[in-house]
Amino acid sequence: MSRRRRVYEGKAKVLYEGPEPGTLIQHFKDDATANNNQKHATIEGKGVLNNRISEFIFTKLNDIGVPTHFIRSINMREQLIREVEIIPCEVVVRNVAAGSLTKRLGIDEGTPLPRSIIEFYYKNDELGDPMVSEEHITAFGWATPQEIDDMMALALRINDFMAGLFLGIGIRLVDFKVEFGRLYEGDMVRVVLADEISPDSCRLWDMRTNDKLDKDRFRHDMGGLIEAYQEVARRLGILFENEPKRRGPTLVK
Amino acid sequence: MSRRRRVYEGKAKVLYEGPEPGTLIQHFKDDATANNNQKHATIEGKGVLNNRISEFIFTKLNDIGVPTHFIRSINMREQLIREVEIIPCEVVVRNVAAGSLTKRLGIDEGTPLPRSIIEFYYKNDELGDPMVSEEHITAFGWATPQEIDDMMALALRINDFMAGLFLGIGIRLVDFKVEFGRLYEGDMVRVVLADEISPDSCRLWDMRTNDKLDKDRFRHDMGGLIEAYQEVARRLGILFENEPKRRGPTLVK
Repeated sequence: MSRRRRVYEGKAKVLYEGPEPGTLIQHFKDDATANNNQKHATIEGKGVLNNRISEFIFTKLNDIGVPTHFIRSINMREQLIREVEIIPCEVVVRNVAAGSLTKRLGIDEGTPLPRSIIEFYYKNDELGDPMVSEEHITAFGWATPQEIDDMMALALRINDFMAGLFLGIGIRLVDFKVEFGRLYEGDMVRVVLADEISPDSCRLWDMRTNDKLDKDRFRHDMGGLIEAYQEVARRLGILFENEPKRRGPTLVK
Repeated sequence: MSRRRRVYEGKAKVLYEGPEPGTLIQHFKDDATANNNQKHATIEGKGVLNNRISEFIFTKLNDIGVPTHFIRSINMREQLIREVEIIPCEVVVRNVAAGSLTKRLGIDEGTPLPRSIIEFYYKNDELGDPMVSEEHITAFGWATPQEIDDMMALALRINDFMAGLFLGIGIRLVDFKVEFGRLYEGDMVRVVLADEISPDSCRLWDMRTNDKLDKDRFRHDMGGLIEAYQEVARRLGILFENEPKRRGPTLVK
């Protein structure tokens, strides 16, 4: 395992060469960053929880016909994925005003939006992932109009599915960020869901208490991040039984 | 004239009630603002020049079939226009990187863009006119998808015409901002060009020297604003002959 070739290291994940050509191993780290890397911490157990939650959601999305890069689980922190060419546009779907939208448009956090809104952000740490529109994406060739259409259609299907999934366990899906990749198969190329879907990339509010069960706990120094992620996994019915127990306030910063 | 009812006062213009229902008088002031009103000055003669340049361009756009609110010139500072309902989205067309785009996307000023890019900004001084995408515009009902299509199609026609017009007089059309309005005629409503087109709302660079002949002279404290606007009017062949001569560095701040 120590001899694996590291293909890419991001803020919260590492990609290693996979066992077969066209595959990679996606490894979830315990690192957390916010505010474009200005804030950084290691939170023990986060990687395991995100891997578990993400593999669960990707599997279910595959089941309903949303193509993803996910192949299978490997271990507590790792999953086997198809190698894709990441499209450099983060896709955000918003159902309720929160985060940057509240400031940009002067809307109070928690305000339901008139309808789900899709936003694109150019993946570029140096520029702070600026919001862009389809015009920029097509003019600079980051994605084709067809790929934008595919990403938007998939993002809305993912939103429908996840809104239902989380509603069923008493959680409001406020917004989430996804990334897509180009999967090359012979002469064909298609857009598939890549990266991860986890409490790191979603805003999830308890429907009864409005408690935040997501990375905003880290962004806003609220503590209790692991407990919140565990609560999400528990409600999804996928908390590992042999996980270390973390009932009290045992957040490692 | 002093008894006219003031309908609206903006940063650089005043709208008065017109002589007939459905008409307004658009009056160009000498005020200049920048950085979302943090910077303000009065520049003697600017209103006269902008009125002259804008009425010229609007007339020519009408001639090629681009519908506008412009009816006719009244005097050196005023024009008769149709009353429209302004769509609260500023439309920016960019041909060359300058201004906010250079910072947002990390592109050097002066870099030709791969193709013309249309951007939308939500007209809201309190929020600093934030950039938005079609998703925000339709979700919040600021304009319909059809109106967005109309605005984009008209903006591209305006860009084509103005790029040609300015090329003919040795000026590069770097970018410009336009506003559109809904013109109600009986049961019909259509999107027409409104507001103004002038060196206040365009970036115009001399093709030989790269001198800025636009409001960036004010934004960046470069001086010589009136001389630059006069140069644009002179090359367009529309400098009033009875205008006060301003050959030297007589910028009033």
